[in-house]
Order: sequence, then C-alpha cells, then structure tokens
Amino acid sequence: MGRYLAITGGVGGAKLALGLANILEPRELAFAVNTGDDFDHLGLHISPDVDTLTYTLAEASNTETGWGRADESWRFIETLAEFGGETWFRLGDRDLALHVTRTRALASGQTLTQVTASICQSLGIAHQVLPMSDDSVRTFVTTATGPLAFQHYFVRDRCAPVVSGFEFRGIDQAAPSAAILEVLADDCRGVIICPSNPFVSVDPILNLPGMRDALRACGAPVVAVSPIVGGIAIKGPTAKMMAELKVPSTAAQVARHYGGLLDGFVLDEQDADQHGQLEVKTCVAQSVMSSLADRIALARVTVDFIESLV
Amino acid sequence: MGRYLAITGGVGGAKLALGLANILEPRELAFAVNTGDDFDHLGLHISPDVDTLTYTLAEASNTETGWGRADESWRFIETLAEFGGETWFRLGDRDLALHVTRTRALASGQTLTQVTASICQSLGIAHQVLPMSDDSVRTFVTTATGPLAFQHYFVRDRCAPVVSGFEFRGIDQAAPSAAILEVLADDCRGVIICPSNPFVSVDPILNLPGMRDALRACGAPVVAVSPIVGGIAIKGPTAKMMAELKVPSTAAQVARHYGGLLDGFVLDEQDADQHGQLEVKTCVAQSVMSSLADRIALARVTVDFIESLV
Repeated sequence: MGRYLAITGGVGGAKLALGLANILEPRELAFAVNTGDDFDHLGLHISPDVDTLTYTLAEASNTETGWGRADESWRFIETLAEFGGETWFRLGDRDLALHVTRTRALASGQTLTQVTASICQSLGIAHQVLPMSDDSVRTFVTTATGPLAFQHYFVRDRCAPVVSGFEFRGIDQAAPSAAILEVLADDCRGVIICPSNPFVSVDPILNLPGMRDALRACGAPVVAVSPIVGGIAIKGPTAKMMAELKVPSTAAQVARHYGGLLDGFVLDEQDADQHGQLEVKTCVAQSVMSSLADRIALARVTVDFIESLV
Repeated sequence: MGRYLAITGGVGGAKLALGLANILEPRELAFAVNTGDDFDHLGLHISPDVDTLTYTLAEASNTETGWGRADESWRFIETLAEFGGETWFRLGDRDLALHVTRTRALASGQTLTQVTASICQSLGIAHQVLPMSDDSVRTFVTTATGPLAFQHYFVRDRCAPVVSGFEFRGIDQAAPSAAILEVLADDCRGVIICPSNPFVSVDPILNLPGMRDALRACGAPVVAVSPIVGGIAIKGPTAKMMAELKVPSTAAQVARHYGGLLDGFVLDEQDADQHGQLEVKTCVAQSVMSSLADRIALARVTVDFIESLV
C-alpha cells in the first residue's frame, strides 16, 4: 500500500497539511511543495512555502504574524535597517538560521530535496516534505507595469498590483522531484490538492514537465479542496487575482481551473449550491479551518472522500 | 598638515585607537587595519579586526564578551546549533547584520575599503578606517599538525596549538590600500603601531608589498607601543607565541622584531629597565589601559613622543 501525496503551497495549504499529518502516518503521506516563490535575498536561498509547511508540521509556526517561526525576535533585521539594508522581507533571528543552513547546504552541492530532508529531521518532522523540483522555477506575476518577482508582488507590494497573468520562469527546463514521481508511481493511494492558491502555489507544481502525465498515470483519485469559501479566499490573494483575471471568484471556478485533472472536489457548506456547476464528484464539508480540530476534521473528510472514489 | 596613521589589529590595538580618536580630529588621524584574519564563514565575509575597531570607535563594542557588538542577542546562533550548524564562531544577531551588509556589498562589486567607509558612516564614525588591502590576505598559523587558518587557531582552538611560524597567503599579490598610501604620502605627521600582536596583527600590514618602503619614504616618525607589559600580553596570545617561537617575551623583543622600521618605542613603566636594550628612542609610560582616561592618556603620551621626534 503506497502513500497519499498532498500538493501544497504555504499558509492555506499548510493548514490542511497539518490535519493530514495528524491522521496519516509518515509511511502513508508525503507532501509536494511549491518552490516557485523561492527567491534569493541577502545572499540567502529562501523557500517560503517549504518553510511555512515545515514550521507548521513542527508546530513551530508563528501564530502572531501568520508567517515565519514561533518565539521569534527581530534584532538582525532591525540592525540591518541601521545599515540601510533591505527590510521588506522580515527575516527573524531564528528563521535566519534555517535560511543560512539551506544556503550553505546548497552551496556545498546538496539538492533542495536533500537539505529539506535534513532540516525536517532537525525539526523533528517525520513526514516527507518534497520540494516540487530541485531545479529553479521562479514565479513572476504579470502586472500593468511589467513582471514582478513573486515575493516582490506578495510581500513587498502586499498584492496591490493588478494581476493579468503568471510566468513560471525556468519551468520548461525543470524536472519534477524524483521523490514525488516515486510517490506517484509506487501504488499511490490518492492525491490531495490542498486549499492553496491555484495560480501561484499549485500551478507551478502541476505545470512541471511530466507532472500532469504522472498524476494521470498513477491511477489514484485526485481531489482538490477549495481555497475559496463564500466567494472569498480564506488566506491570501486568490479571490483578488480571480477578479483581476475576470473569472468568477467561486469555488466552482477553482474546480474548472483544475479541469480534467480532478476526480473530486471538496467545497464548503456555504458553497453547497455550486455543486450543480461541477462536472466532478463533490464533497461538501465545513472547510474553514480555525482550530487544529478543524484541520483534522477536514483532513478526515477529504481522505474518506478519496477512499470513496477508489 | 597631514594626518597620523595608526596601524592596528583588534582588541589590544583598538584600545589605543579609541584614545587617539579622542584626541585627534578625523582630519588628523586615519587607521590602517589588519585584514589577515578576515575569513569566509557561513557564506559571510567576516573582518574581525575591522569590526572590533569600528565597534570600539562607535562605542558599540561588547564589554561583557570582549568581542562583538554591545546589546547583543544570540537567537540566530542558538537556532543554527539546532540545525547542526557551526557555532564555534559566535555570531550575534546584531553583529550578523554587519556581516550580511558587507558580504552583499562585496558581492555587488564594492571594495572592502568602500563598504567599510559605508559601515563607518552608518555607525557614526568620522575617522577613516582603512582595511590594509582590498585584496585577500589570509593569515595561517604554522603548528605541529600543519597550518591552521587564523580564526580556527584563535577562536575555535583558543590559541592552544603551539606556533612555529606564520604564513600570509596571498600577500605577494596583494596591494596595500591606496588610501593608506595616500595618508603616508600626504605630509604624514607620524605612524603609530598600536599595541597589537606583532606577528598576526601588525606584520600582515607591514609585509604588504611596498608598505615598508612607503613607511620609510613618508619621512614621519614611526613609533610602536608595546603590547607586552611585564612579560605578559595585555590581550591575546602574543606572549605565548613569543615563548613558542623561542624569543624572550619582552617589550624589548617586540622593538627588536620591528627593527629598523622604528624611530621610537613606548614601553610600560614596569619595563623601564629594558630601556638600555633598545637601539631606538624610548618613552616610558603607564600603558595598561583599563579606563577610557587610560586610553586617552596613553594616546596623548604617544603623540607627544612622536612630536618630540620630528
């Protein structure tokens, strides 16, 4: 019996990921994580979505800020400001240790997959966290004033620019993670697309050369959980992007976005009436995850839904 | 009327440097600083002697540890330890901001001289702090078990290995700082060799190609202040090294080490009896600097001594 593969980006997806990790053993579940919003900053390789997931799984995520590491301090970045350094991406003193560790390991020739495994081990994470690729893919957001590197759009400019499209630079030359392909090829039990931003968190993973073929070929049900509830995004700019892209900001539209890839779609009770608009099987659930119990409950519903599709 | 040039390494020399900065205007004094113990660590370019001097001049040096920055915290390095990172060189959270700033500036093509000027400006230092060279010189300590990079000897191994010699790798290809040569050429008023380690702090500066010629050619008195008082080093491994090199651990021996370069030598009251062993003019002073007043007093005595030699 193989594993489930959960495809995820940062905060929104990581909530369900934590629920899944609570109900599935490490031998039953692996995570495929977006690295399209990785970037080089202050000489460091930063992998925001991988870090959000690992901090979340390690129960070390910062619940005050909603990003970064718990029990954080900011002496480094405050002092960097005194030297006129760039401070729009707030690197905490503890978080910095992870970025330095990763950057050193990459410089010494390790792959992102290897260094992520090593970081997970240090953080006590038993589930496999698999960056989508060891090759560089860089998401750029197309705006009226030109392309913006994702973190500049997302963090520096606080998602203010109007979006008209996306580029995943380097994706044509990027290979999907061999470890992810192995999960899919090895009697995969199901694929869960977590409630992450379809455009900038999930599409970079799905659009890797060969990834959609591998998903189809694995034969396991592919189920997405809607990141849109009641027309708004639980977290992040998904709904704003949909409006700017001139598509309906609805759960049903997210399902249409994934198209023929899906075997099932989980949508919130608030959106139960969109059920009829969908060509895939649906599962209606309470999908707003405030507590850990909510995360576990949605994970359970999603896994049961997949089992029902087998 | 030109400037004084003070040649210095880290902690010991920086004490007198601070005294000098208190009695001489920025237009009257520049510092030539050892960079032989610079090293690359965790992807950062670290210049320990330059940093000790700048923190000292900025009154931002850490008096608890004797190194690093005041009002420091250690969240980064503690967390790095959790990831199995190297922690023998204790980088404080605030100190780290300086190293990141320098490393980024060097990577963008600035010289060490330029980035040091910029850091000094941020720290409110008006005197010119001039790294000895913009080229890489790396001090290695020769030991029974082979050469040791200086910081490995000094910090990691706490000066325990027995020293039999020194190498300044890269020095033959290194040019002295153009700004230092300019201070010497421009009606220099005097050269003060601060009470730093002669072997690893001062010699890398003096041994730069052309530096001794420039010192001689400037015509100004060259005076050294003894780092050895009563047979022991006020700070650091100078006396231990002298014993291992099988030379007397005395102030007079330091003067002999500098040889014909010196026009004068400042030795402590405790060592007044060594006066007769010296071929240069001497000045006996209270040279143990505990307070700021001690630093200023020794600076005053040294400058007056130089003026007497003109």
